[in-house]
Amino acid sequence: MAEKDWIRRYFAPLVRSAGAAGLTDDTAELSPANGPVVITTDAMVEGVHFFPDDPVETIARKLVRVNVSDILASGAEPREALLTLGWPAEGRSEAELAAFAAALGDELSQWGADLIGGDTVVSPSGLFLSLTLTGACLGPAPICRGGASAGDDVWVTGEIGAARRGYLWKTTGQGEAGWLAALRLPSLPPLSAAALLAREASAAMDISDGLLGDLAALAAASGLAAMIELSAVPFAGGAESLDQAVDLASWGDDYQLLFTAPPAARLAIEASGIPASRIGSLVKGQGLAARWQDAPVNLPETLAFEHGRHA
Amino acid sequence: MAEKDWIRRYFAPLVRSAGAAGLTDDTAELSPANGPVVITTDAMVEGVHFFPDDPVETIARKLVRVNVSDILASGAEPREALLTLGWPAEGRSEAELAAFAAALGDELSQWGADLIGGDTVVSPSGLFLSLTLTGACLGPAPICRGGASAGDDVWVTGEIGAARRGYLWKTTGQGEAGWLAALRLPSLPPLSAAALLAREASAAMDISDGLLGDLAALAAASGLAAMIELSAVPFAGGAESLDQAVDLASWGDDYQLLFTAPPAARLAIEASGIPASRIGSLVKGQGLAARWQDAPVNLPETLAFEHGRHA
Repeated sequence: MAEKDWIRRYFAPLVRSAGAAGLTDDTAELSPANGPVVITTDAMVEGVHFFPDDPVETIARKLVRVNVSDILASGAEPREALLTLGWPAEGRSEAELAAFAAALGDELSQWGADLIGGDTVVSPSGLFLSLTLTGACLGPAPICRGGASAGDDVWVTGEIGAARRGYLWKTTGQGEAGWLAALRLPSLPPLSAAALLAREASAAMDISDGLLGDLAALAAASGLAAMIELSAVPFAGGAESLDQAVDLASWGDDYQLLFTAPPAARLAIEASGIPASRIGSLVKGQGLAARWQDAPVNLPETLAFEHGRHA
Repeated sequence: MAEKDWIRRYFAPLVRSAGAAGLTDDTAELSPANGPVVITTDAMVEGVHFFPDDPVETIARKLVRVNVSDILASGAEPREALLTLGWPAEGRSEAELAAFAAALGDELSQWGADLIGGDTVVSPSGLFLSLTLTGACLGPAPICRGGASAGDDVWVTGEIGAARRGYLWKTTGQGEAGWLAALRLPSLPPLSAAALLAREASAAMDISDGLLGDLAALAAASGLAAMIELSAVPFAGGAESLDQAVDLASWGDDYQLLFTAPPAARLAIEASGIPASRIGSLVKGQGLAARWQDAPVNLPETLAFEHGRHA
């Protein structure tokens, strides 16, 4: 099938924005925004970021969510998306393409975002996907990693480690099959988390490389040290031991939000309706210190999950 | 090498925009613009859009140019770029990565653009590249394909067919080796073409799928028919016959600009210093009619070059 046919048949129907001109032009006009606009790009590769037998619907939705989590972490609401679709020359049917496009469009609209452009090409091996997503900041500036102050609390939305449990089940049969859904399609906090962060957060990022490594990165960007109470982290399925807590907090693919806020914001955060847990604080210094049931623990030297080794 | 090391070592030094925060955050802030902002994404895949033995420097520069041509065609100046880099797990050295990044940065700055973000991932097969590029419109709205009126002239910048000649040499040994450079790295009109189009053009697009097919697409988007005088087209190396003219005008990868303007704009276009040739006109009706040395000619039914079959 020729590129223009793909676009016309499956992606043009997704387009609602006037600036995208039905995907007939090579460029699209970004819709005007009242405040700052942020932009992010995240790619997903078959065999690296997802399994070849994952349903195309969850692949499409995960592609959207891994970008949405970055936008929410900036205190912004998703706006407009451009897709690079590297579709395999062989081995995937047109029905899969139709299902991919439909899921992508549905997931984008659930976050209030529009597809406005992109490029479709042939991939010599598996699916190769990249999405660029803009976001409209709800505050006067994007929330970034480096804005925290000493004394700020550390918060995390939702639960940590569900994708890790799904990966363990998929690759070793360990645990419960139900977690596979979280690996294929991470749960994100609701869209209203963007407004909460814009209002209350001093620094934020999404958790894509493991809670511990990402917290260390946020603390470093803010020029501070982080203290984390691992027994306060809401682990998916719970953590029965320190080892398990460290494992679940080290792996990644959570896409929940990690953010900091001054202690004066505690009541507002707890009253916001966004599921968020206070798991530590930032202090002067550098590095990452952890506790488990109020006792200091030693952390493994290599914390951060690097994409590329899990599938 | 881990993703964060790649970014730190080779791409972070390219970043000049304050909104990109040295690529430390997952999102970047787009710089504010006075007028409309357009955005485009074009991908390039090893073995499809370029040859495995092409130098990484020309691959990087071509990736920038295939996106720049879309921005210029909108009557806009390139602004900010995000790169998705799918780098092969094996077979390409760190020196090649360094050369790729340096060429990308240099080419972007030649067009006044900044790298502000992106994602680096492992590619299971060859290089997989996608660039997203924004542009600041110099006029009150982007120039698009559908804006032409009956009676408008059709113009093309630069020369057509150099990449086709390079491809013929590369794959059959036919012609001269010197054309290979044009296949690897297309010549673009100067940046000032954006201002000319913003001022004078009624419709425009870049020529990526062949002059004839792209002209047919522009005419269709404008609800008009196109007449082209093939002997007025500035073919790279000249065209000795109608067959050769049709071949050179059908293949693609030119990345010159195709635009329309009312006859009243002729003097301004000719005086602009942008190399542009008047090659036809738009009239009421639909379809594409061609002439060669003032006589009507029959065109092959399938005109448009589809990416994916040339390498």
